[in-house]
Amino acid sequence: MHAFDLAVSLAPAGEGTWQGHTSPAYANMIGPFGGITAAQALQAVMQHPQRLGDPVAFTVNFAAALQDGEFTVLARPARTNRSTQHWIVEVRQGEATVITATAVTAVRRETWGIEEVPLPRVPRPSDVAAPDRKGRVEWINRYDMRFIAGGFPAVWDGSESQHSRTQLWVRDNPPRPLDFLSLTALSDVFFPRIWRRRATLTPIGTVTMTVYFHAGSEHLRETGDGYLLGQAQAQGFRNGYFDQTAQMWNEAGELLVTTHQVVYYKE
Amino acid sequence: MHAFDLAVSLAPAGEGTWQGHTSPAYANMIGPFGGITAAQALQAVMQHPQRLGDPVAFTVNFAAALQDGEFTVLARPARTNRSTQHWIVEVRQGEATVITATAVTAVRRETWGIEEVPLPRVPRPSDVAAPDRKGRVEWINRYDMRFIAGGFPAVWDGSESQHSRTQLWVRDNPPRPLDFLSLTALSDVFFPRIWRRRATLTPIGTVTMTVYFHAGSEHLRETGDGYLLGQAQAQGFRNGYFDQTAQMWNEAGELLVTTHQVVYYKE
Repeated sequence: MHAFDLAVSLAPAGEGTWQGHTSPAYANMIGPFGGITAAQALQAVMQHPQRLGDPVAFTVNFAAALQDGEFTVLARPARTNRSTQHWIVEVRQGEATVITATAVTAVRRETWGIEEVPLPRVPRPSDVAAPDRKGRVEWINRYDMRFIAGGFPAVWDGSESQHSRTQLWVRDNPPRPLDFLSLTALSDVFFPRIWRRRATLTPIGTVTMTVYFHAGSEHLRETGDGYLLGQAQAQGFRNGYFDQTAQMWNEAGELLVTTHQVVYYKE
Repeated sequence: MHAFDLAVSLAPAGEGTWQGHTSPAYANMIGPFGGITAAQALQAVMQHPQRLGDPVAFTVNFAAALQDGEFTVLARPARTNRSTQHWIVEVRQGEATVITATAVTAVRRETWGIEEVPLPRVPRPSDVAAPDRKGRVEWINRYDMRFIAGGFPAVWDGSESQHSRTQLWVRDNPPRPLDFLSLTALSDVFFPRIWRRRATLTPIGTVTMTVYFHAGSEHLRETGDGYLLGQAQAQGFRNGYFDQTAQMWNEAGELLVTTHQVVYYKE
């Protein structure tokens, strides 16, 4: 069983309630990788017997650091329309709320469509070297990341870059067919923009992340276990918070996700 | 009293509960302008006696069209930390949920900071003409909008543009000192990107909007009742949904907000 599937497996624990467990395979510096927590929260929606359609938008707020161990996910369809549904999700440890989230699911239809942000001109994944050392934290080893531009600073010397953009090819390691949950986790795969911009390891923590799914299930199937091109950049850093705006395409150049987050930084 | 203040005034109705009323001054084609509904939902957080700090992030999901008339807002602090707080908000009409939302508030601190997206080179507000006709819907008249690029198509002839970008100067009409609520409403001021891109009046509806507040209260004070430069663009249109990513700066060039939404479109 793939480590990702193990990590996002939840056990039913009553109506709209599931039990999960943090995954050592996705451990971060303190507590778990935020992307896996986001995927676990969305899993409760995906497994809910009343779910209508596929995820269109998902916002997850990281209210507190998760402790390693068990957690409870509560998912409630607050509103069900003819072709859309609105969810409120909470993750709790004991009596304490550690995650709040909302999701929109919908039945997709055939319509006119077009993309405005094309896949950047980049070398193919096979032409980009993988990092030659193991990740400093465990979850990094669950992803095959091939940095094209804006990788980790070679030296942490506090020298400021002109911008915070990063481009990389990325997929699960070992490869795993893409689904809405892994796409959610992948949306959080970018290292903090402030580290990139300042070459300084200031303490950080993602406060909120929103994922917009441009991909329907057929695009996920077409993508399979191929690489995604991820591109991320901050727009502003101020008073302890910066934003990140990002896009992810598959190798065929289809835009799968646009995703945004706000990250706390210490100094 | 300014129409905006009237629109966002809520009456206490028990712990964490407020009563409001849709505002004819902000009427849209059907129901109210989404921006005013978003501001009304956030108002419950702003007025909550347990609120800690100012808004950093706010996500509002438009679960159903509001009926003209009364509504109830429920706001609950799901988690309170030392300097951040996480809110779950619902707006109901009768027993039905019409809005779900989450907010993050925080006490801001002095830190290193920088902006990565500068105010575009644009003419000053006084050098840009205001539209010479009244808005087709009432809420449009509550804003002074001066389109620099990407205004409403001159003819709705279905001719496709190369992109969906719009730039405009905008402020409340009549002018009103900016606060977190009016900034939230202003974040929804852009007309649908699909109308811009296709010159076709396809039916649309915003499904979810996220506002990231780069501005603290001192930046709002400095902005006063001046204009904001708003810039919005879609990244992808597919299977009945498109996204919009936008920025708003004040006249001094400070980035106040980055904001994103997903919009349903019919065909």
